[in-house]
Amino acid sequence: MINKLVENIKKKEAPIVVGLDPMLSYVPKFILDKAIQEQGETLEAAGSAIWEYNKGIVDAVCDIIPAVKPQIAMYEQFGIPGLQAFQKTVEYCKEKGLVVIGDVKRGDIGSTSTAYAHGHLGGVQIGSRKCYGFNEDFITVNPYLGTDGIKPFVDVCKEEKKGIFILVKTSNPSSGEFQDREIDGRPLYEIVGEKVAQWGEDCMGDSYSYVGAVVGGTYPEMGRVLRKIMPKAYILVPGYGAQGGTAEELRPYFNEDGLGAIVNSSRGIICAYQQEKYAGFGEAGYAEASRQAVLDMKEDINRIF
Amino acid sequence: MINKLVENIKKKEAPIVVGLDPMLSYVPKFILDKAIQEQGETLEAAGSAIWEYNKGIVDAVCDIIPAVKPQIAMYEQFGIPGLQAFQKTVEYCKEKGLVVIGDVKRGDIGSTSTAYAHGHLGGVQIGSRKCYGFNEDFITVNPYLGTDGIKPFVDVCKEEKKGIFILVKTSNPSSGEFQDREIDGRPLYEIVGEKVAQWGEDCMGDSYSYVGAVVGGTYPEMGRVLRKIMPKAYILVPGYGAQGGTAEELRPYFNEDGLGAIVNSSRGIICAYQQEKYAGFGEAGYAEASRQAVLDMKEDINRIF
Repeated sequence: MINKLVENIKKKEAPIVVGLDPMLSYVPKFILDKAIQEQGETLEAAGSAIWEYNKGIVDAVCDIIPAVKPQIAMYEQFGIPGLQAFQKTVEYCKEKGLVVIGDVKRGDIGSTSTAYAHGHLGGVQIGSRKCYGFNEDFITVNPYLGTDGIKPFVDVCKEEKKGIFILVKTSNPSSGEFQDREIDGRPLYEIVGEKVAQWGEDCMGDSYSYVGAVVGGTYPEMGRVLRKIMPKAYILVPGYGAQGGTAEELRPYFNEDGLGAIVNSSRGIICAYQQEKYAGFGEAGYAEASRQAVLDMKEDINRIF
Repeated sequence: MINKLVENIKKKEAPIVVGLDPMLSYVPKFILDKAIQEQGETLEAAGSAIWEYNKGIVDAVCDIIPAVKPQIAMYEQFGIPGLQAFQKTVEYCKEKGLVVIGDVKRGDIGSTSTAYAHGHLGGVQIGSRKCYGFNEDFITVNPYLGTDGIKPFVDVCKEEKKGIFILVKTSNPSSGEFQDREIDGRPLYEIVGEKVAQWGEDCMGDSYSYVGAVVGGTYPEMGRVLRKIMPKAYILVPGYGAQGGTAEELRPYFNEDGLGAIVNSSRGIICAYQQEKYAGFGEAGYAEASRQAVLDMKEDINRIF
C-alpha cells in the first residue's frame, strides 16, 4: 500500500491528503436540513448528512488528490450512525482509487492492538470465512505502550500489505509537554522516531517502509531532525493551513527525491466555502470550493521543490 | 459518577471490575453456532454471539460487582456489528446499575478529543436535540498529546459528571520502553502522574477526583510511588490474573481508607469455564463459572485489607 501511496502522489503531482473530518457546523445547511427532515433530529440524520457532505467533496476532488484521511472521532461522536458514515466513506474513497488513511490513533497492549489491527487493516476469522471490519489502507497509531503495542499492527501490515503512521511529534500546542522532554539529552520524540525506523526496517515497500510517522507541520526544526532519523518512513504531516503551518516550513519533511512526506489539510479544504477567499462558491458550491482549495494548496506546496 | 463508583464498590465490598473483552475463541460453541446458523459466517453473527455471551455473564455477576470495563477493540474488530454489540452491552450494564468504564484509550489534538469526549461521555447537539452516542460512565484516555488533548475530556466530565482514567503506567511487558525513561532523574510515568493529579484537582467528587489513572498491577513498586503522587485519583489496575499480577502486589495501589483502586480481570473471569479450576461448570455453565471466578477474586483481593 505504501507503493500505491507513492505512485498516487507521483501521478497526481500532489503530496497532499485531504482530511475528511466533518463537523456538523461544516455541513451546508441544505444538506443537514434535508437529513433532519427525513430522519428527525437524530444521530441517523447526522450520519446521513456527513456522508452526503463527504461524497460531494470526494466526487469533486478525487481526480486531483492521492489520498484522504478521515478522522474517526468526527464520526464516532455520532455513535453507530456516525461510524456507518465512516465506513461508507472509506469504501467509497477506495472505489475512487484513493488511498485511505484512517486517522484512528489506536494503540493498546498486545492482544488489544491485535484486535484493532484486525478491525482496521486486516480481517477476522468467523467460522470458515475471513470478514473485514473497517478495512482502511493505513491507520495512525499511538506509541505510548511501546513495542508490544505496536508489533501487532506491523504484523498485520506485512500480511495485508498495509501501513501505519505512528505518532512521533504531534501538531498541537501542548505536544511538547511529554514529547519534548529530554531523556539522556535527547527529546522523547527522537527516541520514538528511532523506534519507528527500527519497527519499519523489515517491512519495506520499494522505496519506503510500511511504517510511517506523524510529525506536526507546526514544528519544522523537529521535522528536519526526524527526517534524518527515519529516512525510510513516510511522514504524515498535519498542521498545514488552519493549524498554522506554512508551505515554506514543510520542505524539511521531504527527502531529496521530493518524496517522503504527505501533507494533510482538513478544515482548509472541506470547509473552504466558509472562508472569505472562497465565499463566491456559496453553500451550494461547497464541493467546488474544496476543489479550488486543493488546487491552491497543491500550487502552494509544489513551489517549495 | 466517581461517587457512584465508590458507593458501588463499598456496597458490593468488591474493588473489582470485570473486563468484558470477548474474543470469539472465548464464546461457548453453542452460542456461536446458533448465531452462525441464523446469520451465516458474518460480522453480524459475531456481533450477536458476543452480545449473547456478554449478557449471560452480566446476568450472572451483576449483583456482586460494582463495574464492568468493555474493551472496545474486541468489538471494533467486528466492524459496525461489533460496535452495536458494544453499545448494547454498555446500555444493558447501565440498566443493571453497573458503572461502565469504556476502555477506549482515545486521545488526540484538542478539537478531536472534544469529538471523542462527546461520543463517549457527553452528547452531540443535532438541531434542537442533544443526542448520545456510546454514553459510557468513564473512559480510558491516552496522554501522549499533553494537556490540550486531555482538557476536552475533563471539560465534558465536569458537565456530565462523568470520569476518565488516564494511562500512566500500563501493564504490558514493553510499557517501560518510553514510560520508564528518565527525565530530570524521574521516569516519564511519574511526570504523567503529576499531570493527572493536576488535571483532576478542579473536578473532585466527594473524596476522589473525576480524573483517575491506569497503573498496571504488574508493577507494584511503581504503583506505590504513583499512589502518593496522585492521592485523589482512583487507580484502575489491569494486569491481575491472566497477565500475572497477584493480590499481594495490589496493596500499594489502595489508600489507607481501603479505597482508591479498582482491579480489573478480563480473561480470568469471562473465560473462567476454559480453566481447569472451573471446568466442572462446562460450556453451558460458562456464566456460573464466571460468577464463581468473581467470588474467588473478591476473596483473594479482600484478604489484603
